[in-house]
Amino acid sequence: MQSRKQFLKNMACIAAGSALAVGCKSGNQLFNINTIPAGTKMRLEFFPYDLQLRHTFTVATSSRTTTQGVQVEIHYDTLTGYGEASMPPYLQKELGTVESVMEFLGKAAKVLERYDDPTRLEDILAEIDTLSEGNAAAKAAIDIALHDLVGKMLGAPWYKIWGFDKSKAPSTTFTIGIDTPDVVRAKTEECAAKFNILKVKLGRENDKEMIETIRSVTNLPIAIDANQGWKDKHYALDMIHWLNERGIVMIEQPMPKTQIDDTAWVSERSPLPVFADESIQRLSDVASLKGIFTGINIKLMKCTGMREAWKMLNLARALDMKVMIGCMTETSCACSAAAQLSPAVDFADLDGNLLISNDRFKGMEVVDGKITLSDLPGIGVVKL
Amino acid sequence: MQSRKQFLKNMACIAAGSALAVGCKSGNQLFNINTIPAGTKMRLEFFPYDLQLRHTFTVATSSRTTTQGVQVEIHYDTLTGYGEASMPPYLQKELGTVESVMEFLGKAAKVLERYDDPTRLEDILAEIDTLSEGNAAAKAAIDIALHDLVGKMLGAPWYKIWGFDKSKAPSTTFTIGIDTPDVVRAKTEECAAKFNILKVKLGRENDKEMIETIRSVTNLPIAIDANQGWKDKHYALDMIHWLNERGIVMIEQPMPKTQIDDTAWVSERSPLPVFADESIQRLSDVASLKGIFTGINIKLMKCTGMREAWKMLNLARALDMKVMIGCMTETSCACSAAAQLSPAVDFADLDGNLLISNDRFKGMEVVDGKITLSDLPGIGVVKL
Repeated sequence: MQSRKQFLKNMACIAAGSALAVGCKSGNQLFNINTIPAGTKMRLEFFPYDLQLRHTFTVATSSRTTTQGVQVEIHYDTLTGYGEASMPPYLQKELGTVESVMEFLGKAAKVLERYDDPTRLEDILAEIDTLSEGNAAAKAAIDIALHDLVGKMLGAPWYKIWGFDKSKAPSTTFTIGIDTPDVVRAKTEECAAKFNILKVKLGRENDKEMIETIRSVTNLPIAIDANQGWKDKHYALDMIHWLNERGIVMIEQPMPKTQIDDTAWVSERSPLPVFADESIQRLSDVASLKGIFTGINIKLMKCTGMREAWKMLNLARALDMKVMIGCMTETSCACSAAAQLSPAVDFADLDGNLLISNDRFKGMEVVDGKITLSDLPGIGVVKL
Repeated sequence: MQSRKQFLKNMACIAAGSALAVGCKSGNQLFNINTIPAGTKMRLEFFPYDLQLRHTFTVATSSRTTTQGVQVEIHYDTLTGYGEASMPPYLQKELGTVESVMEFLGKAAKVLERYDDPTRLEDILAEIDTLSEGNAAAKAAIDIALHDLVGKMLGAPWYKIWGFDKSKAPSTTFTIGIDTPDVVRAKTEECAAKFNILKVKLGRENDKEMIETIRSVTNLPIAIDANQGWKDKHYALDMIHWLNERGIVMIEQPMPKTQIDDTAWVSERSPLPVFADESIQRLSDVASLKGIFTGINIKLMKCTGMREAWKMLNLARALDMKVMIGCMTETSCACSAAAQLSPAVDFADLDGNLLISNDRFKGMEVVDGKITLSDLPGIGVVKL
């Protein structure tokens, strides 16, 4: 049955000549959702894949040169959906380790085998979610691969299926790492030529020095991630006012996630929008943050993937909250998946694929600083 | 360019023979979303179409034998998307009149002409929404036709695009009209053979008599629509307890929409879920009803269509609220559009197409009382 179908598909391509053949080529083929042979099964493959960082990556609590990850493929009829899990070490409690991800995916493979129809995303992902607590990155890997697969079945990228205009995708922020003033100046000059908005992680002793060093080079808008670094609400608000006078456009997580009332106090008085990052993981967290933060930072690896991310976006909008989309260090697979939502967000921080030297995919690109989506179906990537 | 494309498409169908030709037939063809000739425009057609009711329809405030409506078609390349507006007289202030709908659609036609790409649903519908206040039914007509069109472009029904399993679509309620006990008994016997759950509109003097008459014939579950009929919270709660003992499964709008605190008091104490109907129109109403009602009744004609309905569903779920989907008297066009959401709801009241004698479409059907979706793309209808 399947080989006959493939034969007829090839026949059609040959008969119709080159103009139609574009509709039959791999990765962009027309897939008839109504003629999948009954009983066609999904088959999950996965393997560890460490992401090599172009530069040593430093956050408040650690430095590293790789990020552990797991690559995922779902095979179904003639199609393959790609996904990935990325687990930075400082988030492995929330996201999982390579071992826990591999174990989780083994269980997920058995769930996928029981579904004939990948389009039943609500049921499949709900069942995957109940396999165990946590393991958000493994869940995201399955979610992304399924969305890639279903998008290919529908013959369209998710930004189109969701009804967005890709030209509205914003510029991505790019992070200037904390370093000596000379290094920061050099790095800022390099980045200011390529990006339209910069990101700086604050929350240390040298916050003002860092900003002044960058401002000595460029007047580009800057997004701040304070990484819970400010412990006193008055200090936090003073810093925000100081930053507001220097062309900063938004603040992520100014205070520890335990200081809810203090954060609400700061947000209420802040001239800049204040986004939740460490304070938010999944859909169920969003409603409780209304009135505490101005907006939320959605990351696929934390929220279990594209489906929940889309629901978080819509819930935040319904609650009149702002939305940004972020990422971990990831290949162009997960970054391109996140980028599908980007035409609908206020800020995007999708520089994860730019930070690695062993990307397995080509997909979303940054062109003149702006997130630029491909028209390929699904998550819009080609495997290199 | 377009005729060459059509020629090649026909060639492909002819060359591939009958097995592939099913993929090329009207209404189920494979449409390559990436090869639409640049500059292809949407063209809107619309005309008044009165719905002839099989039986005189009585609500608390009026009786009638027709419902005014407007049928809509959006033509794009080789595809046509179907939509409709239905305006029961008692809701024309909210939904519009034939005249206001026709005037609105004239303006909407000019908006649609400016968009090359129907998949830009978010932008198109946002612009349509700003054309004027109100006119929810006209907005729904455009929304439904666009969803039918985009679903046909994607080659899939919206329940699949949304990720639902059609086998989870619930049984629809069917309304037993208020009448003399003999007529109610006869009508109940007839309906009990065809449906799995009945609906009764209460809020009059004879509420208990009506229920007892039905219960003398059948023990089927019953949904109640009180149509704001109970003005005293203690009376409302007593009635709900009385109904709960008689196999009633849910209550719609027990009290006037102005009595918010009384409704919250009743919902908190009610053993049955309490759904908002007159109290809700659109997405922006949902969050404020949390804590006042247990759930919401979503109707496409009130909420401006499928896109907003889907967002309302997701918002309600995020707020841990129940959802039902309802309709006006409508053809199978709007009913089938609403039915795309039905696999995800708790209750469905989609009997509108069963009430008319001049349906223009075949789509969603009620089989053994259960909502049964077709696998046709878009809203899943064929024009008769």
